[in-house]
Parts: sequence; structure tokens; C-alpha cells
Amino acid sequence: MNIILLDTNDFTGNSKVSIRDRRAEHIINVLHAKSGQCLKVGMINGNIRHGTCISTNKNCVEIEVDNFNILPPPPLPVTLIVAMQRPKTMKKIIQSATAMGVKKIFIIETWKVEKSYWTSPLLTQEKLEEQLRLGLEQSGDTIMPQITIKKRFKPFVEDELPTITAGSLGLVAHPDSTMKCPHQIDGQITVAVGPEGGFTEYEINKMSDIGLKPVTLGIRTLRSEFAVTALLAKLT
Amino acid sequence: MNIILLDTNDFTGNSKVSIRDRRAEHIINVLHAKSGQCLKVGMINGNIRHGTCISTNKNCVEIEVDNFNILPPPPLPVTLIVAMQRPKTMKKIIQSATAMGVKKIFIIETWKVEKSYWTSPLLTQEKLEEQLRLGLEQSGDTIMPQITIKKRFKPFVEDELPTITAGSLGLVAHPDSTMKCPHQIDGQITVAVGPEGGFTEYEINKMSDIGLKPVTLGIRTLRSEFAVTALLAKLT
Repeated sequence: MNIILLDTNDFTGNSKVSIRDRRAEHIINVLHAKSGQCLKVGMINGNIRHGTCISTNKNCVEIEVDNFNILPPPPLPVTLIVAMQRPKTMKKIIQSATAMGVKKIFIIETWKVEKSYWTSPLLTQEKLEEQLRLGLEQSGDTIMPQITIKKRFKPFVEDELPTITAGSLGLVAHPDSTMKCPHQIDGQITVAVGPEGGFTEYEINKMSDIGLKPVTLGIRTLRSEFAVTALLAKLT
Repeated sequence: MNIILLDTNDFTGNSKVSIRDRRAEHIINVLHAKSGQCLKVGMINGNIRHGTCISTNKNCVEIEVDNFNILPPPPLPVTLIVAMQRPKTMKKIIQSATAMGVKKIFIIETWKVEKSYWTSPLLTQEKLEEQLRLGLEQSGDTIMPQITIKKRFKPFVEDELPTITAGSLGLVAHPDSTMKCPHQIDGQITVAVGPEGGFTEYEINKMSDIGLKPVTLGIRTLRSEFAVTALLAKLT
């Protein structure tokens, strides 16, 4: 946890915060914060601020927050479209993409997505937000990414993807492509990543039809969470 | 498991293999292989071959292996020097670096490495090999990387690192550096990655003294396993 994220309802006064949950636990048990100690705090969807630990009684931490505003780190200019994965893997992808600065994530259905994954409790608003917060806390960011779930591939690609990719370089990760994933792209990027078994030829063709270029990370197959990190790292 | 890795002692005849362990389990329960089915197999530290499933009785799988040799994927021209991490994280780093094609890994002691990590059972030859095999199986590779453990930072950097980095671009990941991690380097690379809390200034200076350039991945702090993947992806 490289930043303590605060909501307006954590405030008990104009500048005084009182928290009791895993953030308090972290401040007490990991940071071993004492009264007077500086803490990096951030307003969810707002700026980064300096906090001063006032007290750590039992499970409650009180913080005085100053008004000096520091901008959060800039976002990554990438929209990530990712097929639904095994929930454990999906969590890692959401956390790591968020930590890297992605602000728009679409989780989509594709032919090879295991149907049972869609019943995962991860896909509730609350649980997704938990993963986003973990990613923000890791990277010292405050701006919540937006996750959109799209359960029908064809209408998503035909009706929505053209608008999403407009003005950006559109790419789709495809091991069979002969074009290597490019490096250090200037400007906006949209990148699509398939499920464990990859996209089908039909799906690749549908996305190519609206301008996404199939690119490969090489002949080595990486686990999805590392493939997403590798793609984002190469592209930016 | 994108390849079934075989040792010479798996062979019961010139070209016949009999296995009973987690590889057999995978062939039966994940691949649902039937008699006659093709399997991608590879000789540890050798070539990739075609296998044909002969039988899957109970927990025993028999495979007929042909003599047609396919070269394993080329290695990544990167030597990875990584401070010892929390064992769970270290496992992921070994697996993912191996999957990406790194063939030389040094696990080193630094000031901020938690002393207790060194008592982890992970650091036995057998357990390390397990992680290397998982990485190879993921990426369809056969060539075992070499892991060397160095428990004394100063003699390692002074006496061994100059030879290790000779003829390569030497880099050390350091969040405070003003130089961004470069992309797509031609030729050999040596890259050093610190523990969770980073290298100390002393350690950065020692490595700079022998020519390693401090580079940053940006102001966002990533989890070590994703930072290693991001570095390897950018550099190659």
C-alpha cells in the first residue's frame, strides 16, 4: 500500500479522518506509524495529499490531512479490452493494469471463455472496485479506472468497438500474427487480449475488419497476467 | 502446460515413455488425451519432439516419441540479477522470467532483503527446479535456466558482476533515476532488480561504479513480479 486512499465519508471534520478497516491495519501493522508520522494519502478520484498520523488506538487510526494538493501520476494512454479469464487471473490483470495506469478496461465474452467464469462473485461492482483499489494503492494513484462488462462479442465489436478505438492505434494480441508487438507508441492505444485459449479466427477477423492489427509477443506463450503487463510495457 | 518435458529416465525403451506424475495428470485431466493423440513433448535441455499418446491407464500415461527434432524457442539475451523476495513473489519471478526466455538468474542479498526469506525451502535445488520447469512448460521451452544464489552483496558486485556484465548493456532498476528504461536493445543485457524496498544508495553507487546505469519504469511502483516482466518486455 503506497498510498492511503480516502473517501469523503472517512472524514469526521474538515481535515480530520478516522479509519478502521484494512487501511488502519496496514498503517498500524505494516507502517508501524506513530503519532506525528507523515502518511501519503489520496482522495479517491482527487489529488494526493500529506497526512499526519494523530493516533492509532486499537484498530482506529486518526489522520490530519493538509490542503496541499499533488496531482496523481498521469494515466497510461491505453484502453484495455480483455476476454474474461479464470477469476484469480482476472484479479491480477485488473490490479496490474490499474497499477500501470490503465483507466478504461472492457471485460468481454469470447468463444473460448469458460462459461462458468461469468458466475464469479468477482464481477460484482463491489469486488471489482476492491481490485481497482489494490491496483491504485500499489502505484500511488487515486483515479479509479472504469470497468465495463460486455457479454456479447459480436454486437460489442460491431457497434461499440469502432467508437472506442476511434483516434487510437488498435491492436489485438494474436500469437499467430507475423507482426511483432510495436514499442513506444505515441498517442492513444486500444489493445485487445484474448482468453487462455486465444481468440478464434472469426474473432480476429471481426476485429481486423474494424481496423485492429493482430500483433504477437513472440512464440513463447505467457500467462495472461504477464502477457498483459508485457504488452502494456512494450507499447508505452 | 504447453509442452510435456521429458528426462532420459522417463524412457522405458528407445522411443517409449511412461510417466505417472503431474504431467500424466495434466495429459489425462486437462488435455483429455486419447490413444493416438499428438502431444508436444520436449527433452530437458534438448529439442522439441512430437509424441503420440499410446495409453492413459489410471495414473500412467505412455507416449511414443518420434525422432524429428525441432529447436526450442531462442533464449532472451538477458541476464537477470534479482534481490531475494518474499518466497511467493520469488516463485512468480522465476516462473515468468523463465517463460520469457531468461537463461541466467542470480538471486542476491541486499540490505533491504528480509533475512527470514533466506530460510525458505524454495531455495533448495529441487524447489527452484520445480519453478523453472513450470516456466518452461508455460512457454514451450526445454532449456533449463541456471540460477545462482549470492548471499554477499559487496563481493558479488566487486568480484563477479564485472565479468557477468562484460559485453552487455548493464542496467539497474531504480525508481529515483531520471533515465527511463530504454526499449528494444540490440545485444546482450544485464539487468538488476532490487527488493520490495528498493536498493540503497550505497548499493546503487556500487553497481554504477562498475558501469550499470540506473533506469526507472516511471513513478508508479509495480509489484516486483510485474516490474520484472515490464523491464524484460521493454528491453527486448
